[in-house]
Amino acid sequence: MNKSIVIHYISKAMLIGSALFLLPAAVSLYFGEKDTMLVFLIIGICIALISTPLAIIKPKNKNMFNREALVITALLWVIYPVAAALPFYVSGAIPNFVDAIFESISGFTTTGATILSEVESLPKGILFWRSFSHWVGGMGVLVLLIAILPSSHAMPLMRAECAGPQVGKIVPKGRNSAAFLYIIYAVLTLLTVIFLLFGGMPLFDSVCNAMGAAGTGGFSIRNGGIGDYQSAYAEGVITVAMIAFGINFSLYYFILIKRFKDVLKNFELRVYLAVIAVATLIIGINISPIYETAAKSFRYAIFQVASIMTSTGYGTADFCQWPMLSQMILIILMFIGACAGSTGGGFKVQRFVIMYKSAMKYLKKIVHPNSVNLVKSDDKAMDTETVHGVLYYFIIYMALIMVSLLLLAINNVDFGTTFTSVVTCINNIGPGIGRVGPTENFGFYSNFSKLVLSADMLLGRLECLPLIIMMSPSVWRKKSF
Amino acid sequence: MNKSIVIHYISKAMLIGSALFLLPAAVSLYFGEKDTMLVFLIIGICIALISTPLAIIKPKNKNMFNREALVITALLWVIYPVAAALPFYVSGAIPNFVDAIFESISGFTTTGATILSEVESLPKGILFWRSFSHWVGGMGVLVLLIAILPSSHAMPLMRAECAGPQVGKIVPKGRNSAAFLYIIYAVLTLLTVIFLLFGGMPLFDSVCNAMGAAGTGGFSIRNGGIGDYQSAYAEGVITVAMIAFGINFSLYYFILIKRFKDVLKNFELRVYLAVIAVATLIIGINISPIYETAAKSFRYAIFQVASIMTSTGYGTADFCQWPMLSQMILIILMFIGACAGSTGGGFKVQRFVIMYKSAMKYLKKIVHPNSVNLVKSDDKAMDTETVHGVLYYFIIYMALIMVSLLLLAINNVDFGTTFTSVVTCINNIGPGIGRVGPTENFGFYSNFSKLVLSADMLLGRLECLPLIIMMSPSVWRKKSF
Repeated sequence: MNKSIVIHYISKAMLIGSALFLLPAAVSLYFGEKDTMLVFLIIGICIALISTPLAIIKPKNKNMFNREALVITALLWVIYPVAAALPFYVSGAIPNFVDAIFESISGFTTTGATILSEVESLPKGILFWRSFSHWVGGMGVLVLLIAILPSSHAMPLMRAECAGPQVGKIVPKGRNSAAFLYIIYAVLTLLTVIFLLFGGMPLFDSVCNAMGAAGTGGFSIRNGGIGDYQSAYAEGVITVAMIAFGINFSLYYFILIKRFKDVLKNFELRVYLAVIAVATLIIGINISPIYETAAKSFRYAIFQVASIMTSTGYGTADFCQWPMLSQMILIILMFIGACAGSTGGGFKVQRFVIMYKSAMKYLKKIVHPNSVNLVKSDDKAMDTETVHGVLYYFIIYMALIMVSLLLLAINNVDFGTTFTSVVTCINNIGPGIGRVGPTENFGFYSNFSKLVLSADMLLGRLECLPLIIMMSPSVWRKKSF
Repeated sequence: MNKSIVIHYISKAMLIGSALFLLPAAVSLYFGEKDTMLVFLIIGICIALISTPLAIIKPKNKNMFNREALVITALLWVIYPVAAALPFYVSGAIPNFVDAIFESISGFTTTGATILSEVESLPKGILFWRSFSHWVGGMGVLVLLIAILPSSHAMPLMRAECAGPQVGKIVPKGRNSAAFLYIIYAVLTLLTVIFLLFGGMPLFDSVCNAMGAAGTGGFSIRNGGIGDYQSAYAEGVITVAMIAFGINFSLYYFILIKRFKDVLKNFELRVYLAVIAVATLIIGINISPIYETAAKSFRYAIFQVASIMTSTGYGTADFCQWPMLSQMILIILMFIGACAGSTGGGFKVQRFVIMYKSAMKYLKKIVHPNSVNLVKSDDKAMDTETVHGVLYYFIIYMALIMVSLLLLAINNVDFGTTFTSVVTCINNIGPGIGRVGPTENFGFYSNFSKLVLSADMLLGRLECLPLIIMMSPSVWRKKSF
């Protein structure tokens, strides 16, 4: 393990991260919240003061392998959200520090699960910081670092922080990929803001809601969620935005360079859209007896399907009141999640596609033992390494769910609540059913449970590997390098 | 596909199966239930009359590959339980035929989930038939056929009907393995009966309860379950019996030939016993505030842990009243299940061991890319084929649970009930939580749901493959042979 490069990158990323505190400080200033502004400024400056000396020292050893990249990612994702929780705690918005950590991790992992029962009384600066954490966490702090300060270590770091079974270069050079991803991300977010403004939503709300949709986060700045705006137009814009941010960003690059065929032929995209369509159809019909018109049923259905499948977690209706079939579909969508290479969470459509295809080949092989056994994905033969990666990730993911369920069961709440709390956190969604439904919050859990769920959110966002590697003692042994 | 050999073996097995109807007929005669006796006799004779001509014809083609063995197993396991459901229906004990099929499949798959809210008023012949179906289904009708009529096709048939990732020969010749398995099985069952008689349990009850424990079934002949006997001794005997029948039967062979080292070194056995011990300890402590004495808590805890983990499903306490931690442990034990090569259900300890070991190797490989990557089980290097079989079975199993959850959710009952109904049926346990808890039954489900759950029980018992192969159109094409 090359510790010097680990420290170098983490301190650099923390420096960038400290600069991000200027934005909520500016928002606080604008809304005349001087105390809140000071909180953000002082904490930001403290982080900068600690990181700068470490970031200036040049690493003795410039070698970086996957191991180092994974450890950098894991450590950064533990350190930065804890630092980013300080404003919640110091400003008094969240008086319990564990709650503040939960809220912060929920923000950066784009989960959107909250411990707050009421948000409208909070300072605007704090509300902005919550939503902004979705935006930053969606694409990642390390990717931001590489985008701003190009580095020769771009690819391993991007692979470690970006979600999906295969993170490839979008543009020929990895360092440009990061900048390119952030540019697409910013442009699409801006478009969402503009469209929301068109519908008459206030600027602050438009920006916060757009950032939540872009990062597929789900924190709301209204107690009643997105449904509070009572605007079919705003819901429509956010629905389209959520679906758009759940798509593999490399497809936007293909659109820009006019390789439309590659977009249309993308199997993951087709499955993703098909699942959204079918789920919306079934839920729309299933909930139609509850609402006055079919239009209303389908409006709620598509919003909720898009919100859950993309792992955003925004709500316009309390789906806990829906029939079990609709709830079950939503719970299964939580597992599936968005496309690989998007800001969305979950297990990812691509992994399910790979698992399905390889399982089919396996079954065919049993029936016809002499057939050729190549798993194909997007018409390219998929290497066994990727397939194995997906299979083992599935096992680790399930094992993690099992352990979390046991730890959370200590709280002694009902099975549906316990089960969906873990599922919604590990898949970075936000709401579950029962006592963690869309109109409820995670405040009632014990501090221990909140830390378990926080760990789940991190494990889900980073897809386990970085944190597992970080916690493996053999990685830290001197010999292992 | 060699259809002639398929018909040959199925009709032979049905002939053996029809002979089994003589036992409940004899029981009915003994208890003076003439109507019930006639029902069993007439149905048995009808099955024999249909099967005999088909069984006598020698197959044109004697080739049997895995494909044929899997199809024989799947077809037999659909046909025989339906035939065995007839006595329930014709005798009037279960007036709805779908209910009768559910009960019969639940019996033969050793699930023990019932649609009956009251059993004590049923004729003894019917009660015996329910418990006897556990005993026959635990080891399998085909294995019984091979045990009685040795055949050169013993091994593929045994592999298809026995549970576990690797079914090997116990004794050098496959045909002798079947006979040997049934002899151990019968002796252990007889021992259980004798021990129960010692405690003062009536003969009929002893036999039925012993058969339920032997097959790891779980049908009770008392409305109050095993708890109804109010006997710590009987509970103890049944606890030991359940644990014993959940162990890989090849270990009993090792004991007989005095290879004790192989038994003690068996990793699956160690994990199995360790999980039972740890689960009992945690649950015993967790439920101690509910019961007067610690002894009582642990008595209920070990019984329930053994009952669920071995997939029996007998009950002495209503665990739905226990804290969520205890319930969650039991739900997770449902997935783990018993040892491979036992009469127990579930995913099997051995598969979890293989998954754990191979996932660990995978993680090590990532941390240290140059290490040797051999998955070991029982100190022998495990071939990649077995590992792949386990991984893909896990995927198929999870996919099946997902589809079943969606289909069952149509019933619109709570999440805990829906979830555990599927889990308890696919793992051949019996009770779940909520409306399918130990004091409840499956009677309230719609006919459609009962058929879905029946399919789950069959898929779980046969570990999916035979039924999937049977339903694959390409298997039936003439060319495919």
